Amino acid sequence: MTAQPGRLHLIPTSLGPAEPAHWLPPAVQNVAASLDVYIAENAKTARAFLKLIGTRHALQDVTIHTLGRKVSAGQIRDWLQPLSEGRDIGLVSEAGCPAVADPGSLVVRAAHQAGFEVVPHVGPSSILLGLMASGLDGQRFAFHGYAPVEPAARARQLKSWEAVSRKQQQTQILIETPYRNDAMFDTMLQALHGDTYLCIARSLTTPDQWIKTRRIADWKSAPRPTLTKLPTLFLFMAG
Amino acid sequence: MTAQPGRLHLIPTSLGPAEPAHWLPPAVQNVAASLDVYIAENAKTARAFLKLIGTRHALQDVTIHTLGRKVSAGQIRDWLQPLSEGRDIGLVSEAGCPAVADPGSLVVRAAHQAGFEVVPHVGPSSILLGLMASGLDGQRFAFHGYAPVEPAARARQLKSWEAVSRKQQQTQILIETPYRNDAMFDTMLQALHGDTYLCIARSLTTPDQWIKTRRIADWKSAPRPTLTKLPTLFLFMAG
Repeated sequence: MTAQPGRLHLIPTSLGPAEPAHWLPPAVQNVAASLDVYIAENAKTARAFLKLIGTRHALQDVTIHTLGRKVSAGQIRDWLQPLSEGRDIGLVSEAGCPAVADPGSLVVRAAHQAGFEVVPHVGPSSILLGLMASGLDGQRFAFHGYAPVEPAARARQLKSWEAVSRKQQQTQILIETPYRNDAMFDTMLQALHGDTYLCIARSLTTPDQWIKTRRIADWKSAPRPTLTKLPTLFLFMAG
Repeated sequence: MTAQPGRLHLIPTSLGPAEPAHWLPPAVQNVAASLDVYIAENAKTARAFLKLIGTRHALQDVTIHTLGRKVSAGQIRDWLQPLSEGRDIGLVSEAGCPAVADPGSLVVRAAHQAGFEVVPHVGPSSILLGLMASGLDGQRFAFHGYAPVEPAARARQLKSWEAVSRKQQQTQILIETPYRNDAMFDTMLQALHGDTYLCIARSLTTPDQWIKTRRIADWKSAPRPTLTKLPTLFLFMAG
């Protein structure tokens, strides 16, 4: 008799300090607490997550594989091996939804290639929460990850995305390394058109959450937002 | 003494038949159950949602404003009036996260313009769940809404998005009216390159959930998926 194959569960984690009741459905918390094999971007934050949500296993009995940048396809296939023995596996990201804006998609793709079932679970995504709260067009949008760091290249890239936004009515979404948030904000005020709407979505789901949408011209005369070292999503749309 | 202004809560609803414990965090359910003024795309589904999550009010005591296509800016401002009196308001979509792929963003933008606080809550988004589960690149992606209906225009548009995907390594995401899902699938098999990865994500979060990623060439020899009249997300990425 062959066991039913296991499933790869995509388990969202918190975006910052906040109680799970605010960002995790109980059935997802229950699945996450039952799993004893995880693939994670960072073993330490994965353990903190398991502690927070109340894993049913002793932490030292939970296997956590660390998904580094240089992991090989063969290594990922080995990690997924328990699935063929009928054991479920969890995939978690450093923060938010796994396989979005992180390397977890390699694991998911390998699971599809081997014919295993993949189960995405509901949880917090800064991209989606920011888009909802921005008031910008949610019918068409693009997430770009990071913009170039070099100031002139960054300004050029922002203008080019603004042109796409104008032509396609598409909201543009990007993130920045927290210590560069202020520089990004300054470049946006300089490079984008005065009529363009800019939404700043900071520290989503945490007590520091702050979300504001204004036209670039209005941002220029508004008090400067505090963004230093706080996770921030930038969204804009040509007006 | 002036009351603290109210907040506009963005409350996600289900994507299909499934218990709230699977898709709604308890704290969000609690906020949703406490509100007695809603703006909704559809009053009937909004009432069904309130019943499902156990509103603390008699249904006939909950005010539900219906957000039609032709609603005026003045009308939306009137609906938001309770916020200035310190009363909170909920915004719900027909399914999933409000203000994403629906007209709710007009309400959110009006709230920003009037200086009110907007609070996005965690819940199910087919776009995000599909992206997570696809195994396609989640570092860069674009959601396009609907493709053109006319077959030649549709094929041209798909090829053009495939070219963008190849150039920018950007995952392309679209939806289709459920009764046209089969036609969309056929056009994709014809128009896209054999190496392109296509993910079909059907009936997410429900018992009919089915998610599979294959190259176009492999879809051609695989059993045809059952998509007729079932909500389906299409995601593809040049290989």
